[in-house]
Amino acid sequence: MRPAGRRPGITDTRAAILAAARTAFAARGYTATSLRQVAAIAEVDPALVLHYFGSKRGLFAAAIGLADGVDTLIDGLLRGPLNGLGERLVRFYLQLVDSPTSPVVALLRSAASDDEAARMVREFIGTEVIGRIVEVLAVPDAALRGTLVGTELVGMAVLRRIVRVEPLASADHDLVVAWLAPTVQRYLTAPDPTAASSVKHTCRTK
Amino acid sequence: MRPAGRRPGITDTRAAILAAARTAFAARGYTATSLRQVAAIAEVDPALVLHYFGSKRGLFAAAIGLADGVDTLIDGLLRGPLNGLGERLVRFYLQLVDSPTSPVVALLRSAASDDEAARMVREFIGTEVIGRIVEVLAVPDAALRGTLVGTELVGMAVLRRIVRVEPLASADHDLVVAWLAPTVQRYLTAPDPTAASSVKHTCRTK
Repeated sequence: MRPAGRRPGITDTRAAILAAARTAFAARGYTATSLRQVAAIAEVDPALVLHYFGSKRGLFAAAIGLADGVDTLIDGLLRGPLNGLGERLVRFYLQLVDSPTSPVVALLRSAASDDEAARMVREFIGTEVIGRIVEVLAVPDAALRGTLVGTELVGMAVLRRIVRVEPLASADHDLVVAWLAPTVQRYLTAPDPTAASSVKHTCRTK
Repeated sequence: MRPAGRRPGITDTRAAILAAARTAFAARGYTATSLRQVAAIAEVDPALVLHYFGSKRGLFAAAIGLADGVDTLIDGLLRGPLNGLGERLVRFYLQLVDSPTSPVVALLRSAASDDEAARMVREFIGTEVIGRIVEVLAVPDAALRGTLVGTELVGMAVLRRIVRVEPLASADHDLVVAWLAPTVQRYLTAPDPTAASSVKHTCRTK
């Protein structure tokens, strides 16, 4: 059942380590998980974990879906037409967040209680989310726009999966996308609301 | 220096207990804080804490700013013109979140790592945020709209104060309000984007 031309031994071992890492990070958070524990769950030598992922950080990056094909998927998502990017981001992220052992949820839990994990999340959001959005948007305030996108996506994940507030927690993807996509799209491509020439928004100043 | 006509003994004791509760909840989270510890910090009898706040929950509610005048403030905020509600909510929440010993930040930290605290946050968001918004909006999907407002406000607090992603973490209030207020306002009062007759939004479906 393996695709032709791949080296099955390496692929299987790497996949087993990643699956073990997701389980361990989801159950224990970032700090309390060790490479040795992940190796034990995957039933491989700890040296192999280091060999494939370089460090706990590298393993974490791969485990939260920034490698192993998801990386290419995000690339495709960002390279598509800018006009539909808000919708594509929200829909993709919802799938990521709603998976039963969501690494995103584990990640947010860790970041909230642990400064080291918060630094990790900050670094990853900085390079992998904001860095990429900055690259795609190529405007001076792209970094701020990237963090604004982050606020809506992170907030949705917290209320839907961690605090589990209804009716959002059970809302289907189409409904969430219909409401959130225009927000994310506005953060990405709307004129800067503080610029003198920008269109007036609907909220009056006191 | 006390306002005439108030009973200074009660006011001072209550304020001391609240200050102690904020310190304890911010440092230890919801679960690990006991009424006895709060009483010890405030240097009062534990029975007095129960007398003023009824329970740990009541103390918590007061400590996160849902009483002691803030309650009246939120009321005023919600009762103003619906048109500027998004801006008023974001501006008020920013002040709450940015205070050095912000109970909102402590609350989110607790909710992320502790199911009991998550339930508390869920209950408070349910009654104190969504419940009030439902009341003010008086539309059938008001509960969903309330949770959507929650996603943007919670996400902003997480990225600004817990994960501390720049440039959002250091952005001044006017800039954050300019970007976030239209989002919150749209969640409150824009037509349901999934309704057949609603205005088309700018994101195309794949």
